[in-house]
Amino acid sequence: MSKQAIDPGLGEKFGGKTKRIINPDGSFNVRRRNTGYSPRDIYHFLVNLSWTKFFLLILAGYFLVNLIFGTVYYAIGVENLRNAIDKSPMQSYLNAYFFSVQTFTTVGYGGMVPSGLPANFVASIEALVGLLGFAIATGLLYGRFSRPSTRILFSRNAVVSPYHDKTALMFRLANQRNNDIIEVEANVLAVFIDKDTNNRKYFGMNLERNSVYFFPLSWTVVHPIDELSPFYNKTLDELKELKTEILIQFKGFDDTFSQTVHTKYSYSLDEIIWNAKFKPAFEPDPKGEIIFDLNRIHDYEVI
Amino acid sequence: MSKQAIDPGLGEKFGGKTKRIINPDGSFNVRRRNTGYSPRDIYHFLVNLSWTKFFLLILAGYFLVNLIFGTVYYAIGVENLRNAIDKSPMQSYLNAYFFSVQTFTTVGYGGMVPSGLPANFVASIEALVGLLGFAIATGLLYGRFSRPSTRILFSRNAVVSPYHDKTALMFRLANQRNNDIIEVEANVLAVFIDKDTNNRKYFGMNLERNSVYFFPLSWTVVHPIDELSPFYNKTLDELKELKTEILIQFKGFDDTFSQTVHTKYSYSLDEIIWNAKFKPAFEPDPKGEIIFDLNRIHDYEVI
Amino acid sequence: MSKQAIDPGLGEKFGGKTKRIINPDGSFNVRRRNTGYSPRDIYHFLVNLSWTKFFLLILAGYFLVNLIFGTVYYAIGVENLRNAIDKSPMQSYLNAYFFSVQTFTTVGYGGMVPSGLPANFVASIEALVGLLGFAIATGLLYGRFSRPSTRILFSRNAVVSPYHDKTALMFRLANQRNNDIIEVEANVLAVFIDKDTNNRKYFGMNLERNSVYFFPLSWTVVHPIDELSPFYNKTLDELKELKTEILIQFKGFDDTFSQTVHTKYSYSLDEIIWNAKFKPAFEPDPKGEIIFDLNRIHDYEVI
Amino acid sequence: MSKQAIDPGLGEKFGGKTKRIINPDGSFNVRRRNTGYSPRDIYHFLVNLSWTKFFLLILAGYFLVNLIFGTVYYAIGVENLRNAIDKSPMQSYLNAYFFSVQTFTTVGYGGMVPSGLPANFVASIEALVGLLGFAIATGLLYGRFSRPSTRILFSRNAVVSPYHDKTALMFRLANQRNNDIIEVEANVLAVFIDKDTNNRKYFGMNLERNSVYFFPLSWTVVHPIDELSPFYNKTLDELKELKTEILIQFKGFDDTFSQTVHTKYSYSLDEIIWNAKFKPAFEPDPKGEIIFDLNRIHDYEVI
Repeated sequence: MSKQAIDPGLGEKFGGKTKRIINPDGSFNVRRRNTGYSPRDIYHFLVNLSWTKFFLLILAGYFLVNLIFGTVYYAIGVENLRNAIDKSPMQSYLNAYFFSVQTFTTVGYGGMVPSGLPANFVASIEALVGLLGFAIATGLLYGRFSRPSTRILFSRNAVVSPYHDKTALMFRLANQRNNDIIEVEANVLAVFIDKDTNNRKYFGMNLERNSVYFFPLSWTVVHPIDELSPFYNKTLDELKELKTEILIQFKGFDDTFSQTVHTKYSYSLDEIIWNAKFKPAFEPDPKGEIIFDLNRIHDYEVI
Repeated sequence: MSKQAIDPGLGEKFGGKTKRIINPDGSFNVRRRNTGYSPRDIYHFLVNLSWTKFFLLILAGYFLVNLIFGTVYYAIGVENLRNAIDKSPMQSYLNAYFFSVQTFTTVGYGGMVPSGLPANFVASIEALVGLLGFAIATGLLYGRFSRPSTRILFSRNAVVSPYHDKTALMFRLANQRNNDIIEVEANVLAVFIDKDTNNRKYFGMNLERNSVYFFPLSWTVVHPIDELSPFYNKTLDELKELKTEILIQFKGFDDTFSQTVHTKYSYSLDEIIWNAKFKPAFEPDPKGEIIFDLNRIHDYEVI
Repeated sequence: MSKQAIDPGLGEKFGGKTKRIINPDGSFNVRRRNTGYSPRDIYHFLVNLSWTKFFLLILAGYFLVNLIFGTVYYAIGVENLRNAIDKSPMQSYLNAYFFSVQTFTTVGYGGMVPSGLPANFVASIEALVGLLGFAIATGLLYGRFSRPSTRILFSRNAVVSPYHDKTALMFRLANQRNNDIIEVEANVLAVFIDKDTNNRKYFGMNLERNSVYFFPLSWTVVHPIDELSPFYNKTLDELKELKTEILIQFKGFDDTFSQTVHTKYSYSLDEIIWNAKFKPAFEPDPKGEIIFDLNRIHDYEVI
Repeated sequence: MSKQAIDPGLGEKFGGKTKRIINPDGSFNVRRRNTGYSPRDIYHFLVNLSWTKFFLLILAGYFLVNLIFGTVYYAIGVENLRNAIDKSPMQSYLNAYFFSVQTFTTVGYGGMVPSGLPANFVASIEALVGLLGFAIATGLLYGRFSRPSTRILFSRNAVVSPYHDKTALMFRLANQRNNDIIEVEANVLAVFIDKDTNNRKYFGMNLERNSVYFFPLSWTVVHPIDELSPFYNKTLDELKELKTEILIQFKGFDDTFSQTVHTKYSYSLDEIIWNAKFKPAFEPDPKGEIIFDLNRIHDYEVI
């Protein structure tokens, strides 16, 4: 019989009803309050933003900073920027704005030049802010490029298929990026919610193989439903009543970035297809090269 | 009976009286002299400075460098900066200062322009200093953002609570940052100071579990006070006389920054509350999400 | 007898004929389709480009950007760049182009100065693009310099030599870079293609030693062809029919960059020389220093 | 009796006489020829240069680049730099040189301005070279600051002291930097040169403890000379004839930079002091703080 596994650090005792443990995007269903805050969190946010949003934010920040400094120069008086006084106040304001741009970017054409202490002082602050701002942007861009970005693609569904003389639960995964991942391991747990206590119980799920060395293709993880399986002799209705969820821990070594990478994923019971099997996702072409189409990793056929 | 553990590298023989080994901020009570010195120590200092102090220091450095170069231009003679001679010496000096700013930041409006060898030479040195200075600032800012910054929050107190049929020493810890820490391990030692020799003796403390895989919530580390415990059959007075201190080694893998992280912490005897138990720090809300409030990690109740 | 080893993640069942698994450049003979795409792939491409191509690309990009912005300034009207109107349209266009250069690089001499909203607006965008472009270049250059770059040199051929009382398959490898690699391991598999099914079968190849601690010299990896070897009692013709390929996994710790590094390599049957032995690749000079010539790692003599 | 250990990758068979294996600076006595070459080697050289030499090199490079570009502008004709023609050719040349400075650093005052295609073209190339140069300098400075820089200080001498009821070979080591090193391990080999064959033989040396967890103080590594020791029952003369050398492998985890670090060191026979013992290198001060003076790590007294 299947032995209860120890809590992997997710808690066992919960009085009320709880949602699934791991969301489809790989995050935990936990809200943390009063966590420490640091500017590094902003950095982290900016590093993980999409590229479009990132550049829009930089553009907006650029516009805003120049708006502020331009207004300050205008408030000090455009007469303190040589050649900046123009036909209309609006024109003069625009000149102050573009003088700010020329200072912030350190272009400094010199068509307009600050004169007097206040304008010079503000310009000296703005040039510093500009240089530090672009120093931060340099770090952000490098951080965005060099951060570990392993994306493991899991098949949308797990299937329960005949396997040798018994049945087995299977799912597939592949490396969605072109970096080399090696020494790949998977670890699978089943979680049941006890009807009476609402407590979570964790059960290990043995795998036919829990590691592969190379990972250029897809890897089909196979859990045989034998007498050691927590699914053994359980009907679909029983599993439903237990609010069954399958937790997957993935670990590999990203040889391109020389980093150990981890991913977690989960299948809820309605994402498991019974009596289905996966279709092949890779095959050799006439020239002998193996063609692997990542889109086909989800494909299964009911049997 | 509890067996003496080997010295973890902190020394055993000390003639005089010694302070606690690990301070509340996680540092050792050791003063190292004649350590090697390198500019990297300055880098390290600047990377670990608070953000406010860091920016104040940059501002002060910026002011100072311009003060120095401004004074040098003034000493060379402002007549060598075209358009820099002004109504009063003070005005001229200010012009020299702001010419320095414009050179150091490479803004170079050109309102003032160096002429002659000495001014041009100093300006060429200042522009190089400016560019290297901002190159260093870029590295510092990136270093500040990308350095590993795991902050593990330990409960202010350890408690001694009933546990199954015996008592146990417990403390809690949680990840204060929002980065993912996994494969978490703890290792606990008790240190007694021998009354006669003043020597330190180290004893391992068995844990009910010394690792968890996931760490989104708090983890309560439990040391059962059984016959293998160094606390077994010792009264509070005996422990006081032994100047008992508990050393904790924490290890985990920061999956966000792909780095192994370590922390150390210690509880002195007066930070251990006898006959108390921790209150829950997380619980599901009506929607089924688990709410974990880090501020509640310290909460215990006397029993 | 040699036992079949498990598939290292490269697949077993292939209906058609397949090429060799690992190409001489260390890549897999796999074509992946519909992989995720991200700007980081461009970064990765640029980081792995040769230095000549990289600088030519930067030069071309620099020319192109200035061509575009120069044309925009010309389209807006060179009369909006003070002093830019010249004797001929061609001269004026060149002025617009060089104004673009001066803005993009933030040199901003000020010989030409934008006036009016459109020219000023374009110049403010160009200065931002320039600064971000050079921020990206900074990251790329640092990425190129600091990326792990272990290059393990394998002898062009493996040899089958007499070894003690039997024969052994041997190949040599050395670290081509001057970084320190330590804790070096090798793991060798033989792959046979089944005549009937066209399926791949994997067999582990025992090594006399599968690791060395230091790696300043060459390391000769020795697989004794004994009764546990998949080559045992097989004739060359049999091995040919099985389309024999030898897969090598190499692992080491790059102490200079503090990174674990992996390499893969393979020998096809026609790269194995029968009845040959390697010539020494290093020897002490008269002063007692050991001279190791990496070019001699390939040298063998037929016996 | 001591068993021969396997070659750690340093070779056994050498026809002639060989020098000591590991030099006092921790490098191997191996000269590698025909190693691969890459610009990363220049990077590596510049990252490991002393700070003084590094800045002198930057200064020299800065001067040289401006000398070259200044000469090019002069060759094109200073009349193509507006306002650059001066009283004497020397003055004009200096103006060309400083125009180069202003372009290379992107200061671009605009006192001098290029006119015409050739001067503008050269200036556009120089501004690009300048920006890429400073991008490289940024990477180099960050690389210098962030590279792992563990410096383990070994006691100048090893000593042979009485130890419990036998004698032991001891040496001390400490972390010379202020970064936290933990999980420290040492591994010691003795190397004897066979009189007849001139071949090297390696023997493992058992340690009383081969690891400590914390490393804020010095660690005394103890090899008891018992019947398992390669030194057992050998006279000093015998050890001399064997050209005895002791190789030390050190491994630790730098928790500050989150990197595994390795060091190697060796003691030749004349660096081993017989019948001496180390003096304490750390002790508590009156306030209870432990004072550790790294200079005292070498101190021993003959007994």
